[in-house]
Amino acid sequence: MLSIDKNILLQQIYELGEIGLESDNQGRTRIALSQDEKKGRDQVVSWMKELDLEVKIDRIGNIIGILNASKDNQNKKPLMMGSHIDTVTNAGALDGCYGVLAGLAIIRAYKKANIVPSRPIMVVAFTNEEGIRYQPDMMGSLVFSGGLDVQVALNTIGTDGTRLEDELQKIGYAGTVESKEFIPYKYIELHVEQGPVLEANNKDIGIVENLQGISWQKITIEGKANHAGTTPTHMRFDAGIVAAKINIFLREYTLKNTTTLATIGSQDFYPNVINVIPSKVVLSVDLRDPSEIKLKKIEEALKIFLENLIKEERVCIESEYLARFQPVKFDTKLVDSIEESAHNLGFTYQRLTSGAGHDAQMISSIAPSAMIFVPSRDGISHNPLEHTPENQLVNGANVLLEVVLKNLD
Amino acid sequence: MLSIDKNILLQQIYELGEIGLESDNQGRTRIALSQDEKKGRDQVVSWMKELDLEVKIDRIGNIIGILNASKDNQNKKPLMMGSHIDTVTNAGALDGCYGVLAGLAIIRAYKKANIVPSRPIMVVAFTNEEGIRYQPDMMGSLVFSGGLDVQVALNTIGTDGTRLEDELQKIGYAGTVESKEFIPYKYIELHVEQGPVLEANNKDIGIVENLQGISWQKITIEGKANHAGTTPTHMRFDAGIVAAKINIFLREYTLKNTTTLATIGSQDFYPNVINVIPSKVVLSVDLRDPSEIKLKKIEEALKIFLENLIKEERVCIESEYLARFQPVKFDTKLVDSIEESAHNLGFTYQRLTSGAGHDAQMISSIAPSAMIFVPSRDGISHNPLEHTPENQLVNGANVLLEVVLKNLD
Repeated sequence: MLSIDKNILLQQIYELGEIGLESDNQGRTRIALSQDEKKGRDQVVSWMKELDLEVKIDRIGNIIGILNASKDNQNKKPLMMGSHIDTVTNAGALDGCYGVLAGLAIIRAYKKANIVPSRPIMVVAFTNEEGIRYQPDMMGSLVFSGGLDVQVALNTIGTDGTRLEDELQKIGYAGTVESKEFIPYKYIELHVEQGPVLEANNKDIGIVENLQGISWQKITIEGKANHAGTTPTHMRFDAGIVAAKINIFLREYTLKNTTTLATIGSQDFYPNVINVIPSKVVLSVDLRDPSEIKLKKIEEALKIFLENLIKEERVCIESEYLARFQPVKFDTKLVDSIEESAHNLGFTYQRLTSGAGHDAQMISSIAPSAMIFVPSRDGISHNPLEHTPENQLVNGANVLLEVVLKNLD
Repeated sequence: MLSIDKNILLQQIYELGEIGLESDNQGRTRIALSQDEKKGRDQVVSWMKELDLEVKIDRIGNIIGILNASKDNQNKKPLMMGSHIDTVTNAGALDGCYGVLAGLAIIRAYKKANIVPSRPIMVVAFTNEEGIRYQPDMMGSLVFSGGLDVQVALNTIGTDGTRLEDELQKIGYAGTVESKEFIPYKYIELHVEQGPVLEANNKDIGIVENLQGISWQKITIEGKANHAGTTPTHMRFDAGIVAAKINIFLREYTLKNTTTLATIGSQDFYPNVINVIPSKVVLSVDLRDPSEIKLKKIEEALKIFLENLIKEERVCIESEYLARFQPVKFDTKLVDSIEESAHNLGFTYQRLTSGAGHDAQMISSIAPSAMIFVPSRDGISHNPLEHTPENQLVNGANVLLEVVLKNLD
């Protein structure tokens, strides 16, 4: 009988969450390929080695831990679990890490029961899921699934001017193995919901059927710097006003089109001083919708709005796509299997759409994939207040174990 | 017969403008008490010494060059000219520097003609007029005029966390002389207009009658960081949207109330990443109006708008005054004297209000003060494109000389 050691799982979540802790002891920051993320990686590798896993690092730095099958099953494609351990700035302890460490908990269950699985089982911590420093996000799984050439990815220049491969080498995670050696049989990712739906509906488990499309753009507005005290309002070329109008436009659009989400998360003013009209603003736009048609609709509406702004405010506006992912529909059989497992274990559950992007959406192009969600308190994520009660974290791991057991053959 | 050496004046403007030049060779940056500003100070001091001026540094770091009068006139209050040599980021070469160097040109005229003035003549380069790093702006003249205690000013913490007195010491300009030893007889400041009025009206000389009131606030908006892909629009606490609404509100207000100017020059997003709803935005608000009543009216309107935003967007908003200066009316006799001088020299001229703050507004509380403007091409200032044709710069210096000659007794 296989079972999850809940104490070790929770303890490892806690310990990994201590790495990169901010000085206020609330959030932690492990931006991809930073020194703190290296410490997180080293910790995960050491836990993998404690479980006697074979640990491989592919060229994009994905950490791959393999539990071998019995000799005659060793050449079967591996069943894969995973997620990521990099974080946004000042993050919670669960996003990504939970899926990786629950994967290790499944393997620990095999080890403890002294059972050799009927095909290899793999746990992967994908590089740079968050895309804070290097874009696109979900880069490790995108390269893993062949959606981005590894050499192009390694040449990525970060927001801090660094080259990704140089930083991978600095932290000792520039692997030599090609990702394509590890095409999985199936992929299952366990994750916190990062949204309010499960908690609001009082469900233990979310069965993720599909995933929103994501469109990321960088918009650069060029106005004209001028003296704040002497330039009449009608003679200004104020890049800050233009940025404000874009923000308000997106807000009004999404209040009317409620399946669509739009966020301006980052914005930089130049020269950014109190008495100078901003000459330049660089901002990010994050658009999401479960429907590709609707995602295209807001992209088009924004494009037209920007074209009008150029005339109206007499500024230059350039936009550049940083990432563009179509909505993803997960594997029907695997989704059904998750539902059945949650049902068999007596949990309350519901099917839902993932609002966030996840590594599973990349892997779904090379293997049947699906995701399991557990509730997020107040729907909060990307924030030190991110929280899921311990019993719900353990519930999720138990569903994952059940799904693994059902999907080895 | 006294006359301006226009070649030396223009050459010194050019040379000072080379100090702190940006790598693109366009703008220059000499933020108050930076290493580059120290180089600018050293250059000005060396030019003062070339003119045999007695150079004193007061406790706030104002550079004071004194041309002594004949023995029996030596105890008379000095006639003062001046401005500043600190700059905003990526600035033009004229703002402030022109007034200081034209002051030196007047003294050079005395020296060359071998005439000893009938009272001491002083040229001052005031510390930290721009207020980029340390607030309030116009700090050196504010301390000089007794409007701010020198010890309070020395304890100012900058935007970069440095303490003003420490930085003054680092650059070797922590003087020991008390400013009150130098109460001037009258103060005349020559400056580029930094606005479009003189050029638009085709006038050589602006006679500045009064100066707008200035209100500077720092506004901090606290929302809630959350995942950009999972948080429904109506459940967001988006500090960026609130910042945008403030910007649009001020724009609409100033389009209706055209004497009032409002600028959001600086804005910082936190955590400032693409897929996280901004939890915090810190922005600056610069409000100006020649009428104290109207300045109070926009301050009040903004206050009410912010109170409503707190309810509407369910965020916290705090505002803090960084600087507040009432409108200033310059000395009628001195203003008349400038007009007469411009007229006598055959220039076209007009009276106007200064849109920018200037050291003269501080000095006007302790001595009759006024300002002379020359045109700014396209009204551009605080920008590498700031420009005034050379003949117009020389015209301004000639008016200044005429005004000095008329106001020694």
